[in-house]
Amino acid sequence: MKLLNFHASDGIRAGLLRPAGVEDLARSGHWQGPLPTSRDGIEQLAARLGEAPAELLPLESLRLAPVVLAPEKVICIGLNYRRHAASAQMSLPKAPSIYGKFANSLSAHGAEVALPVVDHKYDYEAELGVIIGKEARDVPESRALDVVAGYCCVNDLSARSLQLATSQWTAGKMLDGFLPVGPYLATHDEIPDPQTLGIHCFVNGEKRQGSSTGDMIFGVASLIAFLSRLATLKPGDVIATGTPEGVQAGVARPQWLKAGDEVVVEIDGLGRLVTRLTGPVRRREAHPESA
Amino acid sequence: MKLLNFHASDGIRAGLLRPAGVEDLARSGHWQGPLPTSRDGIEQLAARLGEAPAELLPLESLRLAPVVLAPEKVICIGLNYRRHAASAQMSLPKAPSIYGKFANSLSAHGAEVALPVVDHKYDYEAELGVIIGKEARDVPESRALDVVAGYCCVNDLSARSLQLATSQWTAGKMLDGFLPVGPYLATHDEIPDPQTLGIHCFVNGEKRQGSSTGDMIFGVASLIAFLSRLATLKPGDVIATGTPEGVQAGVARPQWLKAGDEVVVEIDGLGRLVTRLTGPVRRREAHPESA
Repeated sequence: MKLLNFHASDGIRAGLLRPAGVEDLARSGHWQGPLPTSRDGIEQLAARLGEAPAELLPLESLRLAPVVLAPEKVICIGLNYRRHAASAQMSLPKAPSIYGKFANSLSAHGAEVALPVVDHKYDYEAELGVIIGKEARDVPESRALDVVAGYCCVNDLSARSLQLATSQWTAGKMLDGFLPVGPYLATHDEIPDPQTLGIHCFVNGEKRQGSSTGDMIFGVASLIAFLSRLATLKPGDVIATGTPEGVQAGVARPQWLKAGDEVVVEIDGLGRLVTRLTGPVRRREAHPESA
Repeated sequence: MKLLNFHASDGIRAGLLRPAGVEDLARSGHWQGPLPTSRDGIEQLAARLGEAPAELLPLESLRLAPVVLAPEKVICIGLNYRRHAASAQMSLPKAPSIYGKFANSLSAHGAEVALPVVDHKYDYEAELGVIIGKEARDVPESRALDVVAGYCCVNDLSARSLQLATSQWTAGKMLDGFLPVGPYLATHDEIPDPQTLGIHCFVNGEKRQGSSTGDMIFGVASLIAFLSRLATLKPGDVIATGTPEGVQAGVARPQWLKAGDEVVVEIDGLGRLVTRLTGPVRRREAHPESA
C-alpha cells in the first residue's frame, strides 16, 4: 500500500494512494485520524480495505502532512554511500555516523520551506527514509527488515555553514521544515529489497544526484541492527539513511539552494517528493562567527 | 516551586516538593496527571495551590518519573565550560556545538540504568538542564530567560568508544536511559540567574566534578537565543547545557563507570540526582570496530 496523511477540515486524515487517485479513508469509513506507523496498525488498516470508492481525490489537490507526525527519534546517517565518501576524499567509515534531527524539521510533499538568514549555504540531500513499525531492541540483521513499517523519500536539507561551524552537524540540520518526507509511505511489502532502488535529486528540473541504494556502505538491515543495540527503536522512528554523491558541499563553485528553487527527490517505488524553497523569514543572525 | 513526576497506581502524577515532603497534587485535588511544562500550565498549577495537606510523602519513598516525558527535542551542548575546554586543550569554540539525544534516554532520579556491552568506556557528565516553557522563535538574548519553564540536574551519560568512533557523537549518547534528569523541576522563579550555580558530580561518594555555571562559554540566555534562530523551541524541549571539567574522557588512567556505581549530580537549588548503574543486559556487540 501507498499511504499518506492529508489535511482535512477536521484534522489530519489517512489516505490510500490508488492508481486513479487518493481514497479518503475516513470518508470510506476504513480509518479515522492519521495513518498508523506500527506494523500492527498497518495490518489492521489493510484488513479493512475494500474496492476503490467512486470518489477518488487527485493527489496534487491535497495539502499533505508528513507521513509520520511525532516520532520519538529522527536518526540521520552521514557519509553512507561509497561514491559519496570517495568524492569527498574520505576513507570508508568503519561505523555509521549518527546525528539527530527533531520532529520540528518534518515537512510534507508540496511544502514550502523557508531558508532563514542564519546561513546562506543551503544544500539538498536525497535519502531513503525508513519508518520503524515495531519496538526493536538487539534485533539481528537477518530479521531487521521485519521491524520496518515502510519507506519514503527524504530530503535532508542542510545549512552548511552552521553544520560545519563546529564538529557536530546538528546545528545545520535542525531547522524548521528541513526534513521533507513523502509524498507517501510505501509499506514494507512493496519494497522487498531496499538496496536496489534508484535514487535521484533534481533542482529546478536539473539532475543533481543519481545513484542506487545498492551503493550504501551500511544497508538498511545493518543500520537497524546497529541502532537497536544502542537504543530501543519504536514505531514511528525515522531513519534517514544517508545521501549519495552530488551534493553542493565540497564542490568548487557550489550552487547553493535559494528562494524560489524547487527540489525533487525521487526514489524507485517511492514517488516524487517536491519541496519549494522560500525566502528568509528571520531577521537576526544566529551567531556572527557561524555565518 | 519544586515540581516532580512520580508513578502512582493510575499512572504518572505531579507532586510538589515541600520542606517536609511531597504533596500528591492529584490527591489534594490541585492537578491531574503529569506536571505541565508550559509556563501557562505552571502558572495555573501555582494558582490552585493551598496550605500543605496533612499527608506528605517522603521523597525517597516515591518511584519518580522524568520531569519531562515526551520532549520534541533533546538538545545537547558540547564543550561549553571554559576550564573544560582548556583541560581538553581545545581553543574556545566560536559557536555552540550541538548534538541530539532522544526521549528514550530520559530517566528519573533513583533510576537504575543498564550499561550495555556495546561499549566499556562509560562516563558521566554533570549538566544544568533547561526546560523550555513557551514556544520561542528568534527570541533575543535579553528576553530569552522568559521562555524557560524551569531547571533541573542532568547527567549526560556517554559511551565514549561509540561517541568517538566517528566524527558525530550521538551514537555514544542515545542509549536507553542515558539522560537522567531531576529529581525535580525548579520553576524559573526559583533560579533568577542560572549562571551562578555550583555544579558537582560524585561517583560512589567521591567528588569528580566541581565547578560553577558561571564558567559556561555560552550561557543559558545565549543558547536559547541561538537555538531559537535555528528552530522553533516548544514547551518541554530539553537543553543540556554542557559539562565542566572532570570527566574521565581524556584522562591518562580513566576510571570508567561500571555496574554497581552510584553517580550523583548536584546543582545549587536543584537537588541531588542519583543514578545507579547496572550490568550489561545485551549480548551482542554493536560493531566490531567501534567497541
